Amino acid sequence: MGATAKMTVAELEDFLLREFPQAFSAGHLVIERADGQSCRLRERFGERMLRPGGTVSGPTLMALADCAMYVVLLSAIGPVGLAVTTNLNINFLRKGAPGQDVLAEGRLLKLGKRLAVGEVTLLSGPSPDPIAHVTATYSIPNK
Amino acid sequence: MGATAKMTVAELEDFLLREFPQAFSAGHLVIERADGQSCRLRERFGERMLRPGGTVSGPTLMALADCAMYVVLLSAIGPVGLAVTTNLNINFLRKGAPGQDVLAEGRLLKLGKRLAVGEVTLLSGPSPDPIAHVTATYSIPNK
Amino acid sequence: MGATAKMTVAELEDFLLREFPQAFSAGHLVIERADGQSCRLRERFGERMLRPGGTVSGPTLMALADCAMYVVLLSAIGPVGLAVTTNLNINFLRKGAPGQDVLAEGRLLKLGKRLAVGEVTLLSGPSPDPIAHVTATYSIPNK
Amino acid sequence: MGATAKMTVAELEDFLLREFPQAFSAGHLVIERADGQSCRLRERFGERMLRPGGTVSGPTLMALADCAMYVVLLSAIGPVGLAVTTNLNINFLRKGAPGQDVLAEGRLLKLGKRLAVGEVTLLSGPSPDPIAHVTATYSIPNK
Repeated sequence: MGATAKMTVAELEDFLLREFPQAFSAGHLVIERADGQSCRLRERFGERMLRPGGTVSGPTLMALADCAMYVVLLSAIGPVGLAVTTNLNINFLRKGAPGQDVLAEGRLLKLGKRLAVGEVTLLSGPSPDPIAHVTATYSIPNK
Repeated sequence: MGATAKMTVAELEDFLLREFPQAFSAGHLVIERADGQSCRLRERFGERMLRPGGTVSGPTLMALADCAMYVVLLSAIGPVGLAVTTNLNINFLRKGAPGQDVLAEGRLLKLGKRLAVGEVTLLSGPSPDPIAHVTATYSIPNK
Repeated sequence: MGATAKMTVAELEDFLLREFPQAFSAGHLVIERADGQSCRLRERFGERMLRPGGTVSGPTLMALADCAMYVVLLSAIGPVGLAVTTNLNINFLRKGAPGQDVLAEGRLLKLGKRLAVGEVTLLSGPSPDPIAHVTATYSIPNK
Repeated sequence: MGATAKMTVAELEDFLLREFPQAFSAGHLVIERADGQSCRLRERFGERMLRPGGTVSGPTLMALADCAMYVVLLSAIGPVGLAVTTNLNINFLRKGAPGQDVLAEGRLLKLGKRLAVGEVTLLSGPSPDPIAHVTATYSIPNK
């Protein structure tokens, strides 16, 4: 599996600002790293993340994981706009701590011609215990 | 598996207005049916659903499916606030048609003491071909 | 989604006898129906299915579901030997009853050019309550 | 998450010889390591693993992953016979190389009172590229 990034973090952010304008234009999401094989995203804490009781909501985690998977894939193959998620499996493991950013560490498990498969570990602030774990498959369009 | 609803649609809507205030207070989501074994939700079409290119976004579908699973579970067991999703698997199948509401048809596959498992079929307007299919597991708290 | 079978049950059994010789040559598996959109397989009860305690083992159910998904796909697209499973998700729901055959009811959710997605409901004898539920994705080779 | 093994490898093998007698009595499966948080199993190469064309079959990989998940859980909680798999998700990534053992590296993601969630990476001989990746959930009985 290649480990050379086809896009810089700045290029990825420009691209995603167009693809996910809601999240990126608001400055909630930061790409901390993306190297063609793995990535790390940070979603800054905010009330919009929470469900009643103060837990980070499931849809917040699913959306962040899906985005991390897309970032690591783009960093591996370059700006291919039409890649689409075909499958996403999430296990919710623990509650996030109040007030903490959510971190998404993505990693490609396979980069094929038609399909890319990856996993994303979701973390709450500095704690090493994951709050959720995701595997996802993207379908890569023909050139 | 019991098929008697423990909550009416009006009671479910009151409950969810507290649990998912963003979606419900805006009037986007309607519970069309919930009978203790299955349910049908409608999310009214709106720009907020879309990703660039005009497709219904993955997070929109995941959030709606999670909500449908919660509705059918509540209708089966009554107002238990602390049930949490432990696993959600989604297969994205087709693009939704522009301008169409999204429908979620949920069904319980198992209602145990500790775990409930269900499936949700997501549809775009009147088309019979599903745009996504979800299975999800909820953990039910001890009484 | 087309509903015309491209192979008869006899043709499917001949094909699978070559692909899964262990199971089919022993006469454990019977294709009861396959119509290009859905199928029904029966695995006859036998000690080989069981784990200690007398429950039907997880691997038995996973193997049967994978086979049912392959059968419904073959009946839809004809004898394509190189289709491979890319993802399989199984929820185990109930114990099977002792001495009962296991039935697998498969159904295509999507038949695309590159990917087919289906679901399989696993049943124990005549009981209507499923013992497991599977979704699976097959990758279809280019012609 | 605790990292002290509650059972030695020898105790695990004795236990599994009773639970999975087919596989273990034949000497196909070896537990190379199990430490209460992770484990490594080796399934020795044999014709029984293969599907036509010489690929390692899906059911072989699913059964091995399920077993690895059980081994790491037992090593964490001790000999609890009634733990059952509730969900298993597998992504098939690559073909295994002919003649190679299959290795399963399991790791607990969460060990709760009622549920344990883990991931298993499946490898073909010495290659670092996984041939499959599994997440699985076990339900732990009340004491």
